[in-house]
Formats: sequence, structure tokens, C-alpha cells
Amino acid sequence: MKKSIGPMTMVCTTPVWIVGSYDQAGKPNIMTAAWGGVCCSEPPCIAVSLRKATYTYHNIMERKAFTINIPSEDFSRETDYIGMGSGRTIDKFHDTRLTPVQSKLVDAPYVQEFPLILECRLLQSFELGLHTQFVGEIMDVKADESVLDDDGLPVIPKVRPIIFDTGSQSYYGAGDFIGKAFLIGTKVR
Amino acid sequence: MKKSIGPMTMVCTTPVWIVGSYDQAGKPNIMTAAWGGVCCSEPPCIAVSLRKATYTYHNIMERKAFTINIPSEDFSRETDYIGMGSGRTIDKFHDTRLTPVQSKLVDAPYVQEFPLILECRLLQSFELGLHTQFVGEIMDVKADESVLDDDGLPVIPKVRPIIFDTGSQSYYGAGDFIGKAFLIGTKVR
Repeated sequence: MKKSIGPMTMVCTTPVWIVGSYDQAGKPNIMTAAWGGVCCSEPPCIAVSLRKATYTYHNIMERKAFTINIPSEDFSRETDYIGMGSGRTIDKFHDTRLTPVQSKLVDAPYVQEFPLILECRLLQSFELGLHTQFVGEIMDVKADESVLDDDGLPVIPKVRPIIFDTGSQSYYGAGDFIGKAFLIGTKVR
Repeated sequence: MKKSIGPMTMVCTTPVWIVGSYDQAGKPNIMTAAWGGVCCSEPPCIAVSLRKATYTYHNIMERKAFTINIPSEDFSRETDYIGMGSGRTIDKFHDTRLTPVQSKLVDAPYVQEFPLILECRLLQSFELGLHTQFVGEIMDVKADESVLDDDGLPVIPKVRPIIFDTGSQSYYGAGDFIGKAFLIGTKVR
């Protein structure tokens, strides 16, 4: 018997991303976001939803670009801090001692210290209610060599990403390997 | 020095969801999806992107409804199987011995055995390229009592959701507690 808990965004799992953007004056800003996901394979696109009240919302609308920076667990405190205040009143790069790097592909900064970076140009924005969804085309992925596997691709046990628990408003790490996709299911029938 | 690996959907982390829908004849179908996320808090909405080639795409377009079913790790084999074939040619509920339950709120079935269910009515669909993004309003969340914490909300260590590693095309579990959001960041400055 399932219990009804009402219409809420109680979704497992949600990512923990840092969205990088420039403001009108060219100051780099970062914010933490958990409302988003991949939305298309070709062109490769990512969606992230932000409230209009955020500083980043206006930055992306003006610059038509943003980065998605994936922090490792080592940066969980910084990640939380970046989600607690607005770039209008604080300099989050300064406070966290993280380093902004200007993307050469899009008009947005990325975070030098984070292991995995997606450079995105704004393709579309959709007004959905409290949140506006930004769809960005992923122009390039940049990764620290230390998080790449033998195939040259970033993998979870090396990136050590953070996931967000909507129910307890907490951060968790990624866990153990379960199995290969398109393989473990062959045993079902 | 970061290495450029090109424009790809190499995103950490992506969820593992089972999308439930009815076909024209009323047969319940399920498919596995990892391209999606929360997209709005008010109204509470979830986005999931599917290729037009899928059976589920046509089901959702016709029924204007779907469910998002979050499997626990215990169902990783079934989850993989559900992502390997089309409901056009196989009966995935039958093959996996999972039980379809008709939602009373939306015109879609959910999976009895999975711990966390979101019943969604289609609000909008966006053609983005290879994938179409469906935005569903979450009409209700239903959860097994066993996955609820003391506040009555589902939490990661009890749901034991699966995450998908795009780099290695593998499934991982959720890991250890890192810290409370809007709290651990206070120590940064």
C-alpha cells in the first residue's frame, strides 16, 4: 500500500551542479542548481531550471551562455555556500577561493578546480512557472585527466559527484557499481 | 590542465527512471529513461526526454499522461531489461513480472513494486532534436511507507535509487551522506 504525499518535486535522483555565468559588468558568478538534466542527445543539450529572482537568470538571458560545473565531493562545502547567497551581494568566487576561467567557446566562466565542465550556449528558454528552463547546447566537455577512464571518458567513481536528496535536503555521494547497462538485463527472461 | 573531450552528454549525475504509459489499446508499457530532471517547483514539474522512435513517445502524445517510477537497487536487472526492447514487440510488465497499477489521477499505469512514484499529466512537449522533451505536472507522489523518514518524505538511503553513469554506461547506487544543504556551506567564509 503506497502512501500519497501530495504534488511535490520529490524526485530521486537530482544532480548537484554549479552554473557559471558573467553579469553585465563581466563579473563571473556561480550558483548551485539541482533542477536539471540531459534533454537531448543530438544536438547534445542540457536543461537547467532557475528562478527569475536569481542573478544567474539575468546573466544567462543577456549573455546567452552558461557553464555547468560538476563539483567533486571534496567541494561539498563550497557547493553549499554557492547555493546560499546571491551574486548581487557577494562574490562567490572570492569567498570560496575558486578560480574562474573564461571559456573560449561560450561567453561564460567555468570553475578551474572542478573535475568536469560543460560549456553551453543558450538555445531556448521556457517559462514553466516559478522556474524558467534554460536549454543549452553542450559545445564542449572539459575534464581533468584524473577523472577519465581508459576510454577517455569521465566516470562516476573518479569524478565523485554529489547528488541532492530532495526529501532530506541533504547531499550524498555516489555509491557502488551495480552493473553494466544493456547487459545485466539480459538475465531477466 | 583540462582535456577537451568534445560535445557530448557526459553529465554527472543522471537519474534512472521507468516511464509508465498506456498504448492506444490500453496495454500498459514501461521504458527506462535517464535524460530528465525536475524543471519547476510551482507547479511541481518533471521533464523527461524521449526519442520519437520509442513506443512511449506515441503513448504520451495520445494519453497526455505518464508516470515516473523510481526503482530501488533491487530492481536493477529489471530496469536494464526495460531499457533494452520496445513495447511494440514485447510485454515488459509480463517479462519482468512487475505489476501495473492504474493511476486514479492520470491516464497512465505505475509500477507496484517500485518504492517511489510520480503521477504526471502532460503540460507541454518541446521538440529539441533527436529527443522530444515532455514536461509533466506532478499531480501526486506515492511512496512505500518503508522509504519515508520521520518527516514523512522519501529519502535516498531508504529509496536506494540507481544513478546512471554516462561515461561507462553503467549503473551505480547512491552513496554516503555528505551533509545538510544550506548548512555545511556556512563554514566556508
